Amino acid sequence: MSITLRIGIAGLGTVGCGVVDIIRQQQRMLAERTGVILELSAVSARDSVRERGVDLFGVVWEKNALDLAYRNDVDIVVELIGGADGVAYELVKTALTQGKHVVTANKALIAHHGAELAELAEKHQVQLCFEAAVAGAIPIVKLIKQGLAANYFSKITGILNGTCNYILSIMERDGRTFADVLAEAQALGYAEADPSFDIDGVDAAHKITILCALAYGITPAFGLLYCEGIRDITATDMQAADEMGYVIRLIGVSEKTQQGISLRVHPALLPKSHVMAGVKGVHNAINISGSACGDVFIKGAGAGRAATASSVVADIMDIARGDRSPALLQSFASLEQAEIIPIKNLTGCYYIRLRVRDTTGVLAAIAGVFAEHDISVATLIQHHGDVKDEGEVTITITTHKVQERQIHRALSKIDALEQICDTPRMIRIEETV
Amino acid sequence: MSITLRIGIAGLGTVGCGVVDIIRQQQRMLAERTGVILELSAVSARDSVRERGVDLFGVVWEKNALDLAYRNDVDIVVELIGGADGVAYELVKTALTQGKHVVTANKALIAHHGAELAELAEKHQVQLCFEAAVAGAIPIVKLIKQGLAANYFSKITGILNGTCNYILSIMERDGRTFADVLAEAQALGYAEADPSFDIDGVDAAHKITILCALAYGITPAFGLLYCEGIRDITATDMQAADEMGYVIRLIGVSEKTQQGISLRVHPALLPKSHVMAGVKGVHNAINISGSACGDVFIKGAGAGRAATASSVVADIMDIARGDRSPALLQSFASLEQAEIIPIKNLTGCYYIRLRVRDTTGVLAAIAGVFAEHDISVATLIQHHGDVKDEGEVTITITTHKVQERQIHRALSKIDALEQICDTPRMIRIEETV
Repeated sequence: MSITLRIGIAGLGTVGCGVVDIIRQQQRMLAERTGVILELSAVSARDSVRERGVDLFGVVWEKNALDLAYRNDVDIVVELIGGADGVAYELVKTALTQGKHVVTANKALIAHHGAELAELAEKHQVQLCFEAAVAGAIPIVKLIKQGLAANYFSKITGILNGTCNYILSIMERDGRTFADVLAEAQALGYAEADPSFDIDGVDAAHKITILCALAYGITPAFGLLYCEGIRDITATDMQAADEMGYVIRLIGVSEKTQQGISLRVHPALLPKSHVMAGVKGVHNAINISGSACGDVFIKGAGAGRAATASSVVADIMDIARGDRSPALLQSFASLEQAEIIPIKNLTGCYYIRLRVRDTTGVLAAIAGVFAEHDISVATLIQHHGDVKDEGEVTITITTHKVQERQIHRALSKIDALEQICDTPRMIRIEETV
Repeated sequence: MSITLRIGIAGLGTVGCGVVDIIRQQQRMLAERTGVILELSAVSARDSVRERGVDLFGVVWEKNALDLAYRNDVDIVVELIGGADGVAYELVKTALTQGKHVVTANKALIAHHGAELAELAEKHQVQLCFEAAVAGAIPIVKLIKQGLAANYFSKITGILNGTCNYILSIMERDGRTFADVLAEAQALGYAEADPSFDIDGVDAAHKITILCALAYGITPAFGLLYCEGIRDITATDMQAADEMGYVIRLIGVSEKTQQGISLRVHPALLPKSHVMAGVKGVHNAINISGSACGDVFIKGAGAGRAATASSVVADIMDIARGDRSPALLQSFASLEQAEIIPIKNLTGCYYIRLRVRDTTGVLAAIAGVFAEHDISVATLIQHHGDVKDEGEVTITITTHKVQERQIHRALSKIDALEQICDTPRMIRIEETV
């Protein structure tokens, strides 16, 4: 056992420190499992003074992260800076070009530049690994690339953002408003001071984009994805969903059918029996459907220092053991350009919430619009009006299967009705994984 | 892309035919994902005449499976014969010795001879892979060896036998007896004509033995495992469990604590909120706890032609991509001899069912025995007597935490009481994963 692989880490935030801990404290175990001694040679971080409580004895500090890519004593560059562009992008490109393997936890980078970077890695015959970019400790990238690699995949459904899942779980449990629970999540450290990246679905969108590319052999198609966050979910939605036997979750979905590939992130009503309905709090979970394996469901910690470090180090171990698989499962040349079906062309069932003036004829007017657009109503509930909103009531409706385009058309018509007090709100229903 | 790996398959039952289908029909996809052309050169099966509906055009038939190990046009031997000894064992040993990689779905073989075979593979520098030996389509072996490889593991809990889980799920749903549901499962093909291998827990025992060895770096310790099946579970147990908020599942558990490693298969009461309680029907599921990843839970098809073939072919693909990791995660020399804690030394909570004569003083006598053995009773329910069993009643008891040895001592004492009509029955309670 004489081979040594030397590691340079760019970015010593929470995850970076977690990676340092595993590499320094478990060197012997890692060597037993890979046949290779993993050594930390160099690090780079904005603040070199701050006490991080990790063992960096004998490790070189580079002021400029980019310089890690040029060091002769670095075989693997671990990029934990983050961001789709800027230093992270430059560092990864340079490292690959310099013939270094790259391990990154950067979902934005892979979602935006995955194809270019995969090609670069292939050209320079080095590995580009990004297990930690998707779903924290859950090794879903390796599940697709290794454990289930013999399958054609047909559908991926995931709860991919722990912050949103936490907020929705608490709203569901306590009947509280979105704003109230978000503020609490921020106080508890489950949501950022600027939470938009999470609650607007961008983080989940990066992740499902990566999984979609891996599963279907296409270049990452972030620009073609439909993305909608959870800001507009109300306590009324939660209650109405509950009464009808559903929960609300933010999901990422990518499905491959004969019509093409769909790719979307949005809140959805899931039946309480749905495998994702039981996923609560900050967990992440993914269900993947394959031609031979059928449905495989996996759940775990979606974020956190040790959880994400677990995935970063697993990538390093793959490289140490000599794995030489293409970054996106198949060779760059064999990847296809993604064509994503516009969401309005998909069909599904829908939940609709309307705030209307409690006057004669309002139901008839609404029902007329649905009929006119060939939308078959499955349920319609007129909720008791609040005392403070005298004269207004909330109506919730669910539909049978219909093309989403029709729903949008019907809702614009309904929005124009004089009895409507508020913009109609629609949430998609997912009956199955 | 000029490298070719040639495959010889021994055993063309359900799984073998599934493997042939994937290799022959998806050759191009497999080549894109591995960079290697996978070719089926030779097969062997007892019956060479039977029409199997798979494409074997141009493939050599060997009368004697052992001869596959000597063929120059075979690089990987896929062993799908089954059985801990006999032809399967001879074939795998010979193939490894002849410098061929081996992929097997044979859980009995690995549970009994895994250490010897891992050493042999290492000596001859070939791969020994057995993803399909545990939990069908669920890539739990690769999860441990690859995706979560950076972790020390502390506990594995699994539903590892689909037949038992099916039987228990139906008993739970319909309130029927074990014998009745078993007969139906046999008629439906979910249970074998001789079901003992499944319902006595042996199949699950092989699987948890393998996972335990992988996770804790020990040689497979099948001989030291505690194993108990589901034959004695009654409709009364199911009902009593339900009333107390539990379900009953056959689980395999292996935990590593400062006291040592435990390794056991038995039915258990699980709280309805337990992640395994929602696993119904023929599914398999595993929860694994690691030092960095925390709890990761995975669920999928535990058996079946395509599901198991998915795992066999994933192993072939790992070999094609050049993975050269030790069979049991770490080098044979670094494996430790297992020391398994005897089950009587473990502590836990217990469910006890007693059939007693409905006479004065019986409760006092029972309570006395528990007190004498320092067993603290959590709940005690005296169930309504059946009309046909006049004068007899069933009592179910749950205990607080106590060493299992004490339970056995108390139950022998109780069994000797004159008011006891039937051998006391105990089921372990698992509150957490």
